[in-house]
This record gives sequence, C-alpha cells and structure tokens, in this order.
Amino acid sequence: MDLKEILEKNESKILLLVADGLGGIPHPDYGYKTELQVANIPNLDELASKSALGLTIPVEPGITPGSGPAHLSLFGYDPIKHEIGRGVLEALGIGFHMTKRDVAARGNFATIKPDGTIVDRRAGRIPTEESRKIVEKLQEHIKEIDGVEIILKPGKEHRFVLILRGDGLSDKITDTDPQHEGLKMLDPEPLDESAKFTAEVIKKFIKKALEIIKDEPRANGILLRGFAKVPDLEPFPQRFQLRALSIAAYPMYKGLTRLLGFDTPDAGDNFESEVAKVEELWNDYDFIYLHYKDTDKAGEDANFEKKVKVLEKLDTFIPRLLNLKPDVFVVTGDHSTPSYIGGHSWHPNPLLIYSKRAGIFNPEAKFTERDCSKGYLGIMKAMDLMPVLLANAGKLKKFGA
Amino acid sequence: MDLKEILEKNESKILLLVADGLGGIPHPDYGYKTELQVANIPNLDELASKSALGLTIPVEPGITPGSGPAHLSLFGYDPIKHEIGRGVLEALGIGFHMTKRDVAARGNFATIKPDGTIVDRRAGRIPTEESRKIVEKLQEHIKEIDGVEIILKPGKEHRFVLILRGDGLSDKITDTDPQHEGLKMLDPEPLDESAKFTAEVIKKFIKKALEIIKDEPRANGILLRGFAKVPDLEPFPQRFQLRALSIAAYPMYKGLTRLLGFDTPDAGDNFESEVAKVEELWNDYDFIYLHYKDTDKAGEDANFEKKVKVLEKLDTFIPRLLNLKPDVFVVTGDHSTPSYIGGHSWHPNPLLIYSKRAGIFNPEAKFTERDCSKGYLGIMKAMDLMPVLLANAGKLKKFGA
Repeated sequence: MDLKEILEKNESKILLLVADGLGGIPHPDYGYKTELQVANIPNLDELASKSALGLTIPVEPGITPGSGPAHLSLFGYDPIKHEIGRGVLEALGIGFHMTKRDVAARGNFATIKPDGTIVDRRAGRIPTEESRKIVEKLQEHIKEIDGVEIILKPGKEHRFVLILRGDGLSDKITDTDPQHEGLKMLDPEPLDESAKFTAEVIKKFIKKALEIIKDEPRANGILLRGFAKVPDLEPFPQRFQLRALSIAAYPMYKGLTRLLGFDTPDAGDNFESEVAKVEELWNDYDFIYLHYKDTDKAGEDANFEKKVKVLEKLDTFIPRLLNLKPDVFVVTGDHSTPSYIGGHSWHPNPLLIYSKRAGIFNPEAKFTERDCSKGYLGIMKAMDLMPVLLANAGKLKKFGA
Repeated sequence: MDLKEILEKNESKILLLVADGLGGIPHPDYGYKTELQVANIPNLDELASKSALGLTIPVEPGITPGSGPAHLSLFGYDPIKHEIGRGVLEALGIGFHMTKRDVAARGNFATIKPDGTIVDRRAGRIPTEESRKIVEKLQEHIKEIDGVEIILKPGKEHRFVLILRGDGLSDKITDTDPQHEGLKMLDPEPLDESAKFTAEVIKKFIKKALEIIKDEPRANGILLRGFAKVPDLEPFPQRFQLRALSIAAYPMYKGLTRLLGFDTPDAGDNFESEVAKVEELWNDYDFIYLHYKDTDKAGEDANFEKKVKVLEKLDTFIPRLLNLKPDVFVVTGDHSTPSYIGGHSWHPNPLLIYSKRAGIFNPEAKFTERDCSKGYLGIMKAMDLMPVLLANAGKLKKFGA
C-alpha cells in the first residue's frame, strides 16, 4: 500500500543497527552451534529478552543477495524491481559520487595479443599501485569525447571504474568482456536506439585507451562490463518523511545510502568513530542507519572464532546506543554470512525490535537465530520491516475508518 | 524472480520424498493426537532432530488442493496460473501418454431415456469389466472423425477417457454433463471461434457412439466433461537445470511428472520396488522425486490406525535412502489428508530439510506437525520450496553484488 497517505511526523527516533552478514548456521566444528550462540554478548542477550524477535528474508526464500539488494530491502525498496547495476556498485565501492547524468562500468585491465585475443582477463592481477599509474595516464590523455566527460578511477589490482558523464547517455550497452580467455575483446553494442550515441563514445574511448596502453607488458587490454546508471528511486527521506542519517565506514554502504538520499557524513573508518558520530548527530535525525561491517568480513573469511569475537566487540557498544534512548532500536543483518559457508547465504536474518510497542517478548530469549526463529514477529520479508518500524515509532496513522 | 540468471550446475543431489497426504490433525478418538505423533518412526524422528523443520502451504491458506495443483506447487510452478484440466488428470491417471495435439475429456456412461433425459448419471455404476467391453466396442467402430483420431480408454466402473488427437484442436468446449439427473444430455459448445471444429467432431462422435450403445440396458448414454489439453509448462529439467527423475508407482504422479519432463521409468507397483529403482538410477540424476501413496490412501479411508501403520512402514525405508547420501534430503507431503477428515485438507504439510546448510535444527524435535510448526523454516508456501532446495544444494549463485 502507499504509506504516504498514512505517514505522520513526530519526534520519535528509529535506530537501525545493521550487523552485516549477521546470521549464521550450526558449525560442526563448534558443537553445531552458530556464532551468535557461542559469543558472549550479555548486552544483546538482555536486549533480546525485552524485544520482539523474528527473522527476515532478505529478498525471497532461497535467494542469496549481494549487499546492494539486501540493503534496498531493509530500506523498504523492492530489490527485484530496482536492480542496482554492477557499474554503479563498483563506483559506490570506491567512494565515487555518481550523478543522474552518469553511466558507470566496471573495468578490468587485461593482457591481449596484437589481434585483440585475450590472454589474461586480469592482466596477471597487476599490483594496485602499477594499475593506478596506468589509470592516471589514461585520465591525463582522455578527458572528454564528443562532449562527454570521461572519468577514470583506480580500484584494486587490475580493476578500475569508468564513468561517462553527460546528457542523454544510456546504460543499455553490452559488456565488452567475453568472460573467457582465448576470445577477443567485444565491441560495446547498443541494446536500443537510445544507446547508440553512448556506444559510439565508448568505442572511441576504448580505441584511444588501447593506443595509450599498447606498450604495457601486461595491462595492454581493457574489458568493460555492467554499464549502469543510478536507479531512479524515490529518495528515502521523501518516501518515509524522515530526516535520515547514514553512518557507515565502508564506501559501498555510504554510497548506496547517499543514492537513497540519506545524509552521509564522514564517520571515520571504524565502529568506535561511527558510534561517536551517531552520538554527535543524534538530535538532528529521525532515522539513523548504523552499519557494522566486521561480522560479514569474518563470515566471508570462514573464520568462526573471529566472527564470535567481532560480535562480542559489537556487544560492548550496545549500552552507548541504548543511552541515546532511541524510541525504536532495531538490530538485524542485511543477509546472513555463516562462517561455515564462508560467504553470503539465503538464511534469514536474526531480527530484534526494541520499543515500547514492539509486542510480545520472551524473558528467556537470547539473541540467537534459534530464539529469533521462535519469536513473535515470525519470518517476514525484510521489505516489510520499514512499515513495522514506522508503526513502532508512532509514525503511521490508521488505515481506513 | 527469474532463477535462470543465477542457476549454477553442480554434482550435488536433491532427494524429495513426498508422502502423499502426509499431514494430519488431532483425532479425538486417539487422545487428540495425529498419526505422526502416534506412529513409531524412529528413523524419521532422528532425521527431524538434525533437520530444519517447517510447514508448507500447498496453494494458499485455507485452500484444499487436488493432487495436481499440490504437486505443481512442490515442483515450483504456480498452481493457480497453471491449471491442469480434469480431462488431462483423468488421462494421466490411467497411464495414457498425452501429446500436445491431444484434447482429453472425462467420460461417464449414463442411463438415458429415448429422448435423452438422464435417468442415472453413472449407469448404475456398472462393473469395470462390463464398461471396458463397451469402450472396446466403441473404439472398434470409431477410430477417426474428420481426420481427427479418436482414442477411448476404459476407467473404473462407468468412467472412461476420450482423447481427440489431431491438429488445430481446442479444449474451449463446454461439458455435455448437466450434472443433474432428470435433465437432458447437453451438446458440446465451442467457447470461442477456434473451438468450432473440435465441437463439431465431438458432436459427431457422440452421435455415432449413442447409435452403437443404444441397446445397452444401462450404459446407453454418454456424458463428457473437463475437456483439456496438456498445459504449456516449461519443462522442469530446463527450468531448474536439473537431470530429474520421478519414481512413482501410481499413474497419475508418473503422468504428471512426465508432463513436466521428468524421466519416469517403470518402478513397479509398490514402495519397495520404487526404492530399489531409486538406488539403481541414483548416479544418473540431480533431482529425484520419490512418491509414497499409502499415507494418502489411509487418510482418505479415514483409517487412523492404517495411516499410523503405513507411516511406520515408510520409516523403515529411511536408512536405505540416507545410505544414498543425498546432499539435500527433503521429506514432506503434497497436501494433508487427516484421517479424522477422511479426505484432502488445507492444513499445511510437515516439512523436513536435511542438508549441511539447512540452518537451525532442534535436537529435541520429532517429525510431527507440532514440532514442524515450531521449526526454523516457519510456514512457507510450497511454491517457495524449490529455490530453498536449490540453495541448499549450492545450485544458486548470488543475486546482485
């Protein structure tokens, strides 16, 4: 339904703490327990015993999401309807501020034969520093093509980001990366009429770039994929009538929330500085998104003990956050990253909603996947969370009479 | 979402054991217990204590499905979008292999007066053997009408199946069965232009047939209903990129899975021979559907003790199935058939998913409706099961970055 008709502004504050990749599954090497079950997290456990618990499905049952769609869901946007292209995520990930006039693509340096055949799609994973110099050289020589501004930003190793900035650009362009070695680089092709001009500009860019790097021993080829414009989303503050703050150390999350219209001040590079920034700006916002990355990193590294440790670290910050007296305090993940799997997974996220009106709580409950799975909130779609938070904050009027 | 974009082939195997009509409800004559609660099923109970549990809703809350829609859901097809007509189910049920050129209808012999008024819609439920002879006589005299092949197959008692085979046939034809005695047989009417030719052929068939059986004492009339072509469904193996095997003794289930593109070898007429066939063909498939009919039959007969007994029989086969080392082993029903009700019901199906990555399990749990209702998987739609099974089998890549 259209929430706009029943939204109501008030002074109450919602704090959404997203522990990235929070959920786990039983690990056979640790007595078939999850990281949350093993971790010593007295503050989160106490909070859970006074909160409504549940699980959220990030996108759909069985679907393992990337961070982009998983966060869109949490913020109440349909992640299937609003796909964020790889080029955009790549640009966000290096902290580039995209505008609506931009088309971004993920670039790889590659090693090619004189006839264009790809020998190594990653140019031997050349060092970041070496790659950065090549990107700078390209940028120095190519600044504009047919009135379109060309922006190049280095990434890790062989990766870089290409941004075209201009009017009337389209992202309906095929990849030039054939995804296999032994094949030739492809031409960028327009997928419809509106993309013809953009495709021509990219072709000219590639031609110029290849000329400039032709003597590089390894990085003498260029592969582009995931051409994308920023999605056309109604800004979060407008959609939910909230003054929205995003506190995230990682560029990807900062960039994504900036796209959604959150204020995204610099919050340092660690969780201590993030929490300090929340405390500093607390009074100026109604909705505060706070991102904790370490849980995901440990899960991705398949490091059970590390994930336990960073959960315990997160736990020590809970009293400071409670001290701010949020009217609604939510702790959840964007997706699960079980260390047993060593990557994102489809398993639903533990969810805790602490508010005066959250509903039924279980004084015996702890903050674990199991207790959340037995919680009052049941298993819900992450996309349904926003209305529940707004309701808890008293920001939704009655629907109908 | 379109799973095609994230499907990934690998070597892992999914075994889906469907105990037809598995679920029950508390029976007042048996201490308000269900059949699963009373049955001595140590193997299933042990499996449940190591599995993620839940319940599946076959179609929608409150909807009692037939076997057709209930199975479509389990296989990931929307049963409301893809209805399988009665004529097709009837043809599948007698083991007839329908092609895309066929239109099938369920036929009844009836007793009629000379003016066509129906005296008995079931021709006194004439014995199967007597009915079979009349069908053979009809088939002998009517083999083709206007270039359309006429195929007649006997069923139980007064029932038979009529199949028209030819090009350009339509199933948009009204029933000739008025559903009430004392009324006259109806003419088959085309529901749109495209069905005119088919309706004419059916009219001619009825006329010829009535002439041939006019002296039968009871079976001197013919009623046809549920004209249907096979639904246009994307084959299961293509849709999910799986080598799919169906092992079912009953023609209906074999026929339905054949329609969906499963391999459906002869597996004998009992569960012992079914399991032996699974063992024989295990290495050649990624997805193995195994059907157990007895639970439904006992439920339909309102026979609580029989249902308990056949559950106990099923239980003895579990070790043999586990011995095959499926990567994902699922035990569930297509729908519930509580013996207290004596028929299909809308109650959700007990669901057990056993895999390394299934998620949270409860070591105290048994395989009962109650423990399943408290399980980590919650209550899900049967249609959402396939993505979860594929995810458990590592056959789904990440969605988005």
